[in-house]
Amino acid sequence: MKKKGSCLESIVRYAAGQPRVEQPDHVAAEEPLEIRIEGHSVAVVMRTPGHDRELAAGFLVTENLIRAAGDIFEITVCGTKGEDNVINIVLRDPTGFDPAQLTRHVFSSSSCGVCSKVTIEAVRQSFPAVDDECCIAAETLLQLPARLREKQEAFAQTGGLHACALFDLNGNVQTVREDVGRHNALDKLIGHALLEQRLPLRAQVVLLSGRVSFEMMQKALAAGIPIVAAISAPTSLAVEFARASKQTLIGFLRGETMNIYAGAERVAF
Amino acid sequence: MKKKGSCLESIVRYAAGQPRVEQPDHVAAEEPLEIRIEGHSVAVVMRTPGHDRELAAGFLVTENLIRAAGDIFEITVCGTKGEDNVINIVLRDPTGFDPAQLTRHVFSSSSCGVCSKVTIEAVRQSFPAVDDECCIAAETLLQLPARLREKQEAFAQTGGLHACALFDLNGNVQTVREDVGRHNALDKLIGHALLEQRLPLRAQVVLLSGRVSFEMMQKALAAGIPIVAAISAPTSLAVEFARASKQTLIGFLRGETMNIYAGAERVAF
Repeated sequence: MKKKGSCLESIVRYAAGQPRVEQPDHVAAEEPLEIRIEGHSVAVVMRTPGHDRELAAGFLVTENLIRAAGDIFEITVCGTKGEDNVINIVLRDPTGFDPAQLTRHVFSSSSCGVCSKVTIEAVRQSFPAVDDECCIAAETLLQLPARLREKQEAFAQTGGLHACALFDLNGNVQTVREDVGRHNALDKLIGHALLEQRLPLRAQVVLLSGRVSFEMMQKALAAGIPIVAAISAPTSLAVEFARASKQTLIGFLRGETMNIYAGAERVAF
Repeated sequence: MKKKGSCLESIVRYAAGQPRVEQPDHVAAEEPLEIRIEGHSVAVVMRTPGHDRELAAGFLVTENLIRAAGDIFEITVCGTKGEDNVINIVLRDPTGFDPAQLTRHVFSSSSCGVCSKVTIEAVRQSFPAVDDECCIAAETLLQLPARLREKQEAFAQTGGLHACALFDLNGNVQTVREDVGRHNALDKLIGHALLEQRLPLRAQVVLLSGRVSFEMMQKALAAGIPIVAAISAPTSLAVEFARASKQTLIGFLRGETMNIYAGAERVAF
């Protein structure tokens, strides 16, 4: 049951007017992962086991703690009592590493300010605005959700995982990652790109299965992704952040329609 | 545009084969809220403005920092530059309050252990298991999603808010709260009950519009809610936690069917 996208649980299923049935069913796996840098605990995230090295590496990128694969000397998974729920990242150059500052940074959840303007400015100072003048056809965008569904492995079993997928501008799937947490799914995808030395992700589109909050746009910006598309709705702060960062933000990408909230110049009609 | 569930944004709408249209559209509002206790910052949450006092109070309950309305002396909203994005809670008895311990507790996101067993045990020690022998008819449960939809205010406009609702055992709606974050929606609901001096919420059902993670079950337990039902899927750790805490957990409550993952004895067929 461990270390997979889903677990089998015995449940009671009920349909109106019929007798209740006890049967096994797949449930999305959720377990804590402690992320350490140089042995110092920086976060505990609740994630679906799998691609843990990518998750930890991606988390460090999106928290602006590392920028390239070369910043990492080694990633080690520490097993305790048969569990693999601690991961430690050893830096190539630990001299600039200050655990005290880090803890405060990470635990304050990227939101260092109080009014949204302060937050956005502070975050934008960490990551440059996107200057990628790539362009994708609207018709290509409309095809992405079906391509993501084809690739989703665990969702069909559990109905309980968020997914994100990276596409090139022709709509070809590059990477798909799933997790009970949508932040984790995106961190895994970005961590994969980092470890493959493919950051920044110029001329790429990321498709999110769920909603788009401010934090999701910030993570995409950290990876240099110019176009973020989502099947569901964005928040006001996600829209504001996308405009300030010159990112393209598309929501409600469903069936034959989409809403473009920012950066419409990257969509060709 | 501020302090409401949604904002109007100018967007580009596209439907295949038709010309693109620029038009205003409602977007779910997201802004940071800093929660302070006795002037010490304990968390910054990204929330939809509205019911902020309830959110802050509920957050303190579900983080096990207060247990009753009487623990609060005063809740003050601190405006900065026209924003109301800081809230301070003054305790009736601040002598037991240790900011250092608190910061660690809150920022480590409830997950104090490494393997899930450690986490669950640690959390369960904070909150007693549910001993409420209440019971609800399966047919009543099936009606709850439609009743929640009737009451959802901002969702119809934005499609981007999570909702949760408290019902009595006859399926009557008690309280509905919406937020871009599902944790916030539940904290607002619990904070409302706290301030109305209605905790623990015996003989009540909470319905969640989305998925059920471990943290959602933990928040429900903190408020003493015996039955948690959700329109979408639970995670493995939510199921494990519900069973250990003697909570009833229902998922995929849609149309005429439901899955009961834990505590089926509280559902009458």
